[in-house]
Amino acid sequence: MSSDAPARSVRRRGGAGGSARQKGGLVQAPRGVPHNPWPPFQIVSAEQIEAIHSASLDVLATIGMEILHEPSRALLAAEGCRVEGEKVYLDPAMVEEKVALAPAEVTLHARNPANSVTLKQGNIVTCAVGGPAFATDLDRGRRNANFSDMENFTRLVQCLDVIHIEGGGAIEPTDLPAETRHLDMYRAFATLTDKPWTGYGLGAFRADDAIDMAAIAGGVTRDDMVARPAMLTVINSNSPLRLDGPMSEGLTAFARAGQPFAATPFTLAGAMAPATVGGASVQQNAEALAMIALAQCVRPGTPVIYGGFTSNVDMKTGSPAFGTPEYAQAVLIGCQLSRRYGVPYRTSNVTSANSPDAQAAYESMMGLWPAFLGQANLIKQGLGWLEGGLTASFEKFILDAEMLQMMAAFLKPPALDADAFGVEAIADVRPGGHFFGTAHTLARYADAFYSPLLSDWRNFETWEEAGSPTAAQNANRIWKQLLAEYRQPAMDPATAEAIDSFVARRKEEIGAG
Amino acid sequence: MSSDAPARSVRRRGGAGGSARQKGGLVQAPRGVPHNPWPPFQIVSAEQIEAIHSASLDVLATIGMEILHEPSRALLAAEGCRVEGEKVYLDPAMVEEKVALAPAEVTLHARNPANSVTLKQGNIVTCAVGGPAFATDLDRGRRNANFSDMENFTRLVQCLDVIHIEGGGAIEPTDLPAETRHLDMYRAFATLTDKPWTGYGLGAFRADDAIDMAAIAGGVTRDDMVARPAMLTVINSNSPLRLDGPMSEGLTAFARAGQPFAATPFTLAGAMAPATVGGASVQQNAEALAMIALAQCVRPGTPVIYGGFTSNVDMKTGSPAFGTPEYAQAVLIGCQLSRRYGVPYRTSNVTSANSPDAQAAYESMMGLWPAFLGQANLIKQGLGWLEGGLTASFEKFILDAEMLQMMAAFLKPPALDADAFGVEAIADVRPGGHFFGTAHTLARYADAFYSPLLSDWRNFETWEEAGSPTAAQNANRIWKQLLAEYRQPAMDPATAEAIDSFVARRKEEIGAG
Repeated sequence: MSSDAPARSVRRRGGAGGSARQKGGLVQAPRGVPHNPWPPFQIVSAEQIEAIHSASLDVLATIGMEILHEPSRALLAAEGCRVEGEKVYLDPAMVEEKVALAPAEVTLHARNPANSVTLKQGNIVTCAVGGPAFATDLDRGRRNANFSDMENFTRLVQCLDVIHIEGGGAIEPTDLPAETRHLDMYRAFATLTDKPWTGYGLGAFRADDAIDMAAIAGGVTRDDMVARPAMLTVINSNSPLRLDGPMSEGLTAFARAGQPFAATPFTLAGAMAPATVGGASVQQNAEALAMIALAQCVRPGTPVIYGGFTSNVDMKTGSPAFGTPEYAQAVLIGCQLSRRYGVPYRTSNVTSANSPDAQAAYESMMGLWPAFLGQANLIKQGLGWLEGGLTASFEKFILDAEMLQMMAAFLKPPALDADAFGVEAIADVRPGGHFFGTAHTLARYADAFYSPLLSDWRNFETWEEAGSPTAAQNANRIWKQLLAEYRQPAMDPATAEAIDSFVARRKEEIGAG
Repeated sequence: MSSDAPARSVRRRGGAGGSARQKGGLVQAPRGVPHNPWPPFQIVSAEQIEAIHSASLDVLATIGMEILHEPSRALLAAEGCRVEGEKVYLDPAMVEEKVALAPAEVTLHARNPANSVTLKQGNIVTCAVGGPAFATDLDRGRRNANFSDMENFTRLVQCLDVIHIEGGGAIEPTDLPAETRHLDMYRAFATLTDKPWTGYGLGAFRADDAIDMAAIAGGVTRDDMVARPAMLTVINSNSPLRLDGPMSEGLTAFARAGQPFAATPFTLAGAMAPATVGGASVQQNAEALAMIALAQCVRPGTPVIYGGFTSNVDMKTGSPAFGTPEYAQAVLIGCQLSRRYGVPYRTSNVTSANSPDAQAAYESMMGLWPAFLGQANLIKQGLGWLEGGLTASFEKFILDAEMLQMMAAFLKPPALDADAFGVEAIADVRPGGHFFGTAHTLARYADAFYSPLLSDWRNFETWEEAGSPTAAQNANRIWKQLLAEYRQPAMDPATAEAIDSFVARRKEEIGAG
């Protein structure tokens, strides 16, 4: 069973059928959005979902949500909600009625139509990391995030077929001015990749700039984009039960433009939410419903994604913990809740680990398995998230690509017909023989099994001769190879110029205050 | 959210209720066998299971199984099977009738009754690694396995509550004579731990010595053990479709003594089985059913465990691959097949990785999630398996302990009542506040969330000051700490003496030929 040839040798997968392809000299799994063909795995009963639902409506009606944005409070007041100061008490019937207006499916249109993706029941769409303050890799270690790192992460988004959506800046480029950096970032997203990308939901101007630039890049108007959304963001509540001003503005801008956002409370059980999975889920549900309902008040039919980010603290230290057993349960409950409301569900690929090691992998898997089996529809922070989200790691990015590819391959139902069973092949081989050279095996040679991007299947001796690389070290080689072979997707010069002009004009406007 | 105190600080979990306990200064999850309270996750339909079932009976009837053991062939012939040379053609009706005699539950009685475990629907029992030729750790690297390493692994079996059964020698102590080393091993298992342990199924004398020594250690007779089994082994077919002489002898010895074994084909798709998950599952099922049926011919009612070990080769190199997407599917199909026959299911915790790195973790998770959600009942090779089973790793042992603890914690249904929801706490905290000091949180302080054995939740700065340890390096520290604090379980001197006498006598007998 030993192997003299390196398992990582370059080869092209797939035949004329093109079910898989080669890129950057590395084997990647087939393109496309993974679809779970099985009934969703559920851990709580329909009655328990109703109990969470009822308790969360009770929270909204009796405790209320603080909304630090007068226009939003006014909208809710107009729908009959009681408003006291900055506190809004949301009427349960109104919430249910508004949430029912949110569509069940959301398609994000990429400037390259082949990269458009639909969030809907069974589909599991993946988005790269977004937002960390630090970047890290094995060569240079952890450093303040900068624009050059952000560009490289964006190039990796383009290279890796397993990624469907850019994540909003894998890191926050703190070397650029805070008030205008979003424009440089958006230009990078719009030009370095032709996949959908993520804008800021923090403040109306950053949200509107994202929508404007997606329109320019896609050669469409903002009106066109209402029917064909092209921009995505995340709106976080400040748990518990507060929606701040900038986020309210972003929500409003996205809803007005008919662009989808993931309404995501960050309900860390024991800190910003009760110290139980049940209590944190109630609070998550209350805050998510409030944001979804508000969006429908701004514009009925606004596409929204129910976002869940319930994890727990380490009770000893107060530190947040991710990829815990409680996190896994919360993901599954969140998936069930989103189906209760008929909207797509957003989850994440998380870890508390400080390096791309075994802990980073198993904590990620504690989030990915529930996401794929419970049928989340959008995995934000899908690749590269490390250190509880403080850092984006180039090596973790590749580790995550492998794990996501494996999960996607797992979702493909095995063939279970007579041809697949191969009883005749078993008869030909006979007891004690082997199947290497049988016609049944040869006919399946190219695509019989998942072929890894990262995993090292060389035998020990060959692996040792190669320097005994860990998975993180193999990942280091792979992201560099991908960057070396990256090709910027084509964009017609007029569009590129229009983007540049927009950025220049907006920088002037912002500079002028 | 930052933390100055190391997250790994020693503390005792659980209150007077004793739901968790401290050992060796390290926090461990509560004792006990994990039980999955939800319906099993299934990926194929009942009709597809019937198709696999039918095809496998067809294989046994028309292709037949080579059984290199005349008494076994004679037994099957007496049941009406056609025998030609060493080939036995098994009658489908006979197979179904015999398999139906196998009990649905199997209890293994430990010499310490608190450590007895039951394999039954929903229970997930874990067994340590068994059989590798090499041992490895971060300090000394990979080396030929020796008895001293084997003893240390056995001590870790005793230390870690997440392990229910010793695995039959974490490594094969090649420094001891081949013909008698099983006796030294059994003495180590019987004395260094008071949990159930695994004997050899390779040859009648090794099987019988295991059963005899378990009887001595437990203070019971072999007759007592029929009603109260205390010994476990694995019987592997030589796929495709061959049961060799030593394994037939072991099967016969275990069945005669009423002791359970895991009937486990090693159906590596593309090598020893067809290059499809479906075909390999058909062949796995045929071979497993043949062994289960044979055991019932030896002694009706023999407790058996349906064992599955279907993975696939790397088609490029022929190397075996483990923890693949296909492996995950095969585990779930195997769980479904075992339920079709009403017998417990055995699976494994596998990886192809050569070091205890991220790959080792995610490949293990690709086996553990299906095992826990599909409801396997016995996870053999549950801790320490590395490098496709060639090596037992001390660090992987601890990584696996953590992953198994996390999976067990995940199975505990979250409380979803008003008390857990804590709506009153949410009301008290109010928007923008925090839950750290609330009565609701304080009442749950000790046991609110899973507390890790290994995972490093320290913030980056604290972790860096501690030397930036990877998970493998943290695991290295932990297994040493466990060994340092290991205490051998008590055994009355007469029993210890009886074991010594048995070993001495048997060594003489074997030496005399």
